[in-house]
Amino acid sequence: MNGAASRENLLIVGSLAFDSVETPSGRADMAMGGSASFASIAASYFASPLVVGVVGEDFEDRHIGKFRDHGIDVRGIERVPGKTFHWRGRYHENFKERDTLETALNVFETFDPVIPDAYRSASFVFLANIDPDLQLKVLDQTSDARVVAMDTMNFWIETARESLEKVLRRVDIVFMNDEEALQLTGDWTVLGAARKILAMGPKYVVIKRGEYGALLFGPDLTLFVPAVLLADVVDPTGAGDTFAGGFLGQLSLRGSLDRAHLAEALISGTVMASFSVEAFSVDGICSLGAEKLNSRRSGLEDMIRLR
Amino acid sequence: MNGAASRENLLIVGSLAFDSVETPSGRADMAMGGSASFASIAASYFASPLVVGVVGEDFEDRHIGKFRDHGIDVRGIERVPGKTFHWRGRYHENFKERDTLETALNVFETFDPVIPDAYRSASFVFLANIDPDLQLKVLDQTSDARVVAMDTMNFWIETARESLEKVLRRVDIVFMNDEEALQLTGDWTVLGAARKILAMGPKYVVIKRGEYGALLFGPDLTLFVPAVLLADVVDPTGAGDTFAGGFLGQLSLRGSLDRAHLAEALISGTVMASFSVEAFSVDGICSLGAEKLNSRRSGLEDMIRLR
Repeated sequence: MNGAASRENLLIVGSLAFDSVETPSGRADMAMGGSASFASIAASYFASPLVVGVVGEDFEDRHIGKFRDHGIDVRGIERVPGKTFHWRGRYHENFKERDTLETALNVFETFDPVIPDAYRSASFVFLANIDPDLQLKVLDQTSDARVVAMDTMNFWIETARESLEKVLRRVDIVFMNDEEALQLTGDWTVLGAARKILAMGPKYVVIKRGEYGALLFGPDLTLFVPAVLLADVVDPTGAGDTFAGGFLGQLSLRGSLDRAHLAEALISGTVMASFSVEAFSVDGICSLGAEKLNSRRSGLEDMIRLR
Repeated sequence: MNGAASRENLLIVGSLAFDSVETPSGRADMAMGGSASFASIAASYFASPLVVGVVGEDFEDRHIGKFRDHGIDVRGIERVPGKTFHWRGRYHENFKERDTLETALNVFETFDPVIPDAYRSASFVFLANIDPDLQLKVLDQTSDARVVAMDTMNFWIETARESLEKVLRRVDIVFMNDEEALQLTGDWTVLGAARKILAMGPKYVVIKRGEYGALLFGPDLTLFVPAVLLADVVDPTGAGDTFAGGFLGQLSLRGSLDRAHLAEALISGTVMASFSVEAFSVDGICSLGAEKLNSRRSGLEDMIRLR
C-alpha cells in the first residue's frame, strides 16, 4: 500500500440524532446531530465516508440529502418505524459545563449494526461513540480493515468498562477527551493517562482538550496541535466527533500512519472542529470551500512555526 | 543594534521572599521564593540579570549566594532591618487550586525601588509582579531601556487598576495568565482578551496557560508553544515568574523582538517553567546543565513539528 492520495473508503458507525441545544449564543431545536453525522460530514472533505446508523421515520429525505450532498454513502443508514434518537442539552455561561436535559434513545435503543456487504472492504473504520458492545459487533464484521479507530464517552467508562476494554484491545487509534482519559485510567496527568491507555491496546491515543488543542501519543511519538483561537463560539455539540471525522478523513486520504500523516490528520481534525463550534448542528461544516479550510489551516500552522 | 548573541543586561525588579508551601507532593518551609528570585535564576541561563529587591536580616548570605552562583548581579538587593516577605500557601488535589494561608509583607511593605546607577543602562527591564505604583517608579528610572516587560496578578487588577493601566501604556510586553487576562478585559475568550490588552498599550501580550502552554500575541503575529508534558508536579509556585525570566533571558540574549526570537523566548520560558514545577522553591532551576535544557527543548519542538 503506498501513501499516495487515493480516496480510500472510511466506514463510520455511530449515532444519527436530532439535537435540541441551548447555548449562551442561542438555541436550535431538533437539528441534525449524532456522532456519525458530525464525523461523516467532516470526513467527507477528505475521504469517501460510508455511514452505518439507524434513524426513525421523522428523519426525512432532506436530512439524508445532507449526507448525499457531501458524497457520503448512505446505503448503511437504516430507517425503521419510530422516532430518531433525540438529545436535549444546555450549555452554561462561557461553555464551561453542560447539562443533559433529556435523552430519548427511541429507535437507537435497539440498534444492531449490520455492515452492508458493499462496505466490508473499507480499509479505515471509525467506531464513533456508541455502546462498546455494538462497537464489538462492528469489529466482528470488519476484519479486513487496515486501521480501526474508536471514540467513547464517560457514560460507557462508568457503565460498560469491561466491553470498552475489549474494544480498546482491538483498535489502532482511540479518541478521548482529557477528562475521559483521566477517568478511565485513574491518573491525574494526561501524560500518565496516555501511557496507561497505550498499555491497554491501542497503538495511538488522541487526547482532545477542546480549546486547548489535541495531543497524539504513539510508540516513541508525541504530537500536539493547538486549537484554532476563536473570538466566538455558538455550539460545541459534536466538536469531538467532527475532530475525529476530520482526522480520519485526512488519514484515510494519506493512507498510512506515518508521523507526517498523523500530524496532517491532527491539523485537519482541529480545523474541522473549529468550524463546527461556530454554528449549531452540522451547519458550521456543511459548505466549506477550500479557501476557508486552507486559510484556517495555515493560520494554525503559522502559530506553531518556530522559525 | 544587531541581533547577535551579546549578553545584554536584563534588569529584574520584583519580590524576594520566603515561601512556605504545602502541595499534594509534600511541603517546604521558609524556602527561597519571590518573583525576582524565580525570574532572575531562570534568566541567568541566557542573560546577565541585575536584581533589585529588598530582604530582611533573615535573608542570609547563603541565600544571596544562590544568586551569585548564577552570575546574577546582587548590588541592587537591599538588606534592611526586619523580616523578609513571607508567603504561605496550600495547593489542593491535582494542583487545580491554591489557598493563600498567610501573607506577611514585612520589609516588602515599605519597598521603594532605587535602581543603582550601574544598572540604569540595562537595555531589557522586567517589572516582575509587584505593586504597579512601584513598577511606575522603576519605569521613571529606566528611561534608556530598549525593551520593558511587566507581569502582574489578580490582586492588582482588583485593587490598583488605574496604576496598572498606566504601566500597561508604557511597556512593550506584558505577561498574564489566562484568568488575569479575562479578568482585566471582561472578555471570555483569550483571543478577545488579548486584542483588548494590546489596545491598552503593550506591543506584545504573552498569555500563560499553565499546563496548556503559552500564547504570544503581537501586531500581525500569534505564536503558541505547548507546555512540556510532565508525569509529576511537585510545586507550581513561581512557575509564571520562571517562565517570564526564561523568556526575557533568551530574548535579551537574542537582542531583538523578531518573530524567530520571540518564538525562541517562548520555548525557553516554557522549558524553564517545566523544570521549576518539578521541585519546591527554586530548586528545580538551580543546577541545570546544557544537556538537560537541550533535551527538553528538542522534545518540545518535536511535539509541534508537523513535517
